[in-house]
Amino acid sequence: MSSPPSIITLTTDFGLQDPYVAAMKGAILSINPTARLVDVSHAIRPQAVEQAAFVLAAAWPYFPPDAIHVVVVDPAVGSARRALALRAADATFVGPDNGVLSAALPDEARAAAGESLAPVRLPDGYRAVSVTNERFFRTPVSSTFHGRDIFGPVAAHLSLGVALEELGEPVEQIAALPPFRARRQPDGSLRGRVLHVDAFGNLITDVRLDDLTSANAVVELAGRTIEGVSSTYEPGADLRAVRGSSGYLEIAAPGASAAAVLKAELGLTVVVRSR
Amino acid sequence: MSSPPSIITLTTDFGLQDPYVAAMKGAILSINPTARLVDVSHAIRPQAVEQAAFVLAAAWPYFPPDAIHVVVVDPAVGSARRALALRAADATFVGPDNGVLSAALPDEARAAAGESLAPVRLPDGYRAVSVTNERFFRTPVSSTFHGRDIFGPVAAHLSLGVALEELGEPVEQIAALPPFRARRQPDGSLRGRVLHVDAFGNLITDVRLDDLTSANAVVELAGRTIEGVSSTYEPGADLRAVRGSSGYLEIAAPGASAAAVLKAELGLTVVVRSR
Amino acid sequence: MSSPPSIITLTTDFGLQDPYVAAMKGAILSINPTARLVDVSHAIRPQAVEQAAFVLAAAWPYFPPDAIHVVVVDPAVGSARRALALRAADATFVGPDNGVLSAALPDEARAAAGESLAPVRLPDGYRAVSVTNERFFRTPVSSTFHGRDIFGPVAAHLSLGVALEELGEPVEQIAALPPFRARRQPDGSLRGRVLHVDAFGNLITDVRLDDLTSANAVVELAGRTIEGVSSTYEPGADLRAVRGSSGYLEIAAPGASAAAVLKAELGLTVVVRSR
Repeated sequence: MSSPPSIITLTTDFGLQDPYVAAMKGAILSINPTARLVDVSHAIRPQAVEQAAFVLAAAWPYFPPDAIHVVVVDPAVGSARRALALRAADATFVGPDNGVLSAALPDEARAAAGESLAPVRLPDGYRAVSVTNERFFRTPVSSTFHGRDIFGPVAAHLSLGVALEELGEPVEQIAALPPFRARRQPDGSLRGRVLHVDAFGNLITDVRLDDLTSANAVVELAGRTIEGVSSTYEPGADLRAVRGSSGYLEIAAPGASAAAVLKAELGLTVVVRSR
Repeated sequence: MSSPPSIITLTTDFGLQDPYVAAMKGAILSINPTARLVDVSHAIRPQAVEQAAFVLAAAWPYFPPDAIHVVVVDPAVGSARRALALRAADATFVGPDNGVLSAALPDEARAAAGESLAPVRLPDGYRAVSVTNERFFRTPVSSTFHGRDIFGPVAAHLSLGVALEELGEPVEQIAALPPFRARRQPDGSLRGRVLHVDAFGNLITDVRLDDLTSANAVVELAGRTIEGVSSTYEPGADLRAVRGSSGYLEIAAPGASAAAVLKAELGLTVVVRSR
Repeated sequence: MSSPPSIITLTTDFGLQDPYVAAMKGAILSINPTARLVDVSHAIRPQAVEQAAFVLAAAWPYFPPDAIHVVVVDPAVGSARRALALRAADATFVGPDNGVLSAALPDEARAAAGESLAPVRLPDGYRAVSVTNERFFRTPVSSTFHGRDIFGPVAAHLSLGVALEELGEPVEQIAALPPFRARRQPDGSLRGRVLHVDAFGNLITDVRLDDLTSANAVVELAGRTIEGVSSTYEPGADLRAVRGSSGYLEIAAPGASAAAVLKAELGLTVVVRSR
């Protein structure tokens, strides 16, 4: 009673002009009127599972551990893909079993996926269920909007204290994407790619700051070479490699958009060499 | 004291880059600091009354019945058009008397509007007032921003328990749009139109799933013919007619935008024939 | 305990597609899980300090006086610019010392800035501190995301009752922009500029309604002349000068976008003459 209301975050590709986000919020509030709803993003590109996993992974660690994170980027809605609820020590997740819940997993678990989306075993301390108990759904369940009819309601029930195990059968494997992490090459360089372009036009790469072995790194992308890694976006060179706030190397153009300057797109190759 | 805080939803054409939505929220929270504000959409096209009615109608039924839905799409702000508050069994609404509150009315009541916007009689169980009691306004009332100065504050007072009748004089008729419902033709076909294009490029038509008499329907639009009605967006044909989650027939292009594929715009004619 | 939860508003240039806004909200809620978060805007143009000050100044006065307004438009993040917390009688503000907190100051104080951004003395009744006490930061503090690591957490601690003075050392001057106010010319006319273009395409000028000495004003901009000042956007002339809801003169094109009609951009000169 005196505890703060439960936090439920939402990550979707629904956009903000349609009634979908509000219908999902209404369905949640009809079950738990005190739930605190926080939008992570509704501007995930349509059906971009990897982008959803990246954005959620960069946001959820900052929330209190009792928060519930719902992600609905669900190209196969209405098909046989499973609906999952997953609990870790520091968060709870609800979403389709299509790779978006990669956001919930540590790199070591995701590495088992190999080169692309594949089932991986849940690590110790993680529990997940295939959500099948219709008692916790909004009925009738539509075949095209499980955010409103399944994922949202299930999160609302979890926020009221329903146990994970009541929702369905335990699962031991879930679909996961390989880690967002550039690979070390035989010559010692890191070879990665642009994972995300943010609203400032900064290019977020999958080169982890933890993997940089030297402050004298040289970054190559789009035919350009950037010497050294900076800590800030302060003006100076037209392009710089910056230690990003989420733990990844970013390419920035101070006062401008690096994406525009480089005509860069998602997936662009980035190579980092030590000097 | 122990009841959950009141929910007030907002549907406007204000966009999200300007201070207008926040000023309206501030005005509400200055009256009821515990109100729960939920955005339905602030991306209604400027002054698009019909779109606002459609979006709100697709969202509000999922909220708890004590929610208050404020809609401010108000091309004639500052003119003689009335401000209304309307209460039904399952929701309360506040907005201008320009057709946006069609969202609150059942089809049977809206049908009396005929072919276009017209006053209709409120059905049994619905009460409305013309909001005139300045005691519940923010003062001074500007002539161009009634969302902040009238609609928001009135909703805030309603959320605190002010009775509808205190706000102004009862009205028996309000401006309404004809139902969003394709018409049955003499040959038995349904002739409708594209009501809404969503963020995925799906075309939401005014053909009600309830009006489909056969699973073997044939859908014609933009010179194309689609055989049958699907339950999901799963890949297959380049175009499909899908049973939409809001009760309307949708045209989708799995993995793509039907609006782009068909170069479709709002109002495009759709014909559905039984086979 | 029975008091309403604290309101924290957010004004940033982060956009809504990235994880940044959510990470900042998570950081706040991890400190004060009951804080009420209200978005003012996250669509400030990247690094547009003046726009941020304008938008916040048009929104915060409508909030309860115990609200805390956080603004993070921070091109020099990670440099030597100070982080500030500022308290006035009717609001509290947190943000970088780069001019965005102009929104908090009365015109008389801002006038001391002269022609452009400059330090000004805080007026009586205003207190500010340079935020340096790392006890109230999220650690480790990144060099590129002080919204998440400093401004948000500091606002959360203020919302829990931490005293301003605990955050750091008092300051007597802060960076401010000149008032948003057209200047009176020797011939009695007002010479101003377009401050903001809103979602409707209305041009918000820095001509204060308070400075209009005659209802028979003639407005000149972009080679056009508009006779008289209207109270509403009601149709009629293709262009009209309207008494805006925030106290500024606006140029509107009823049913259309004045910005498009006039091909107008920010900074366009506006002259108002009495007749």
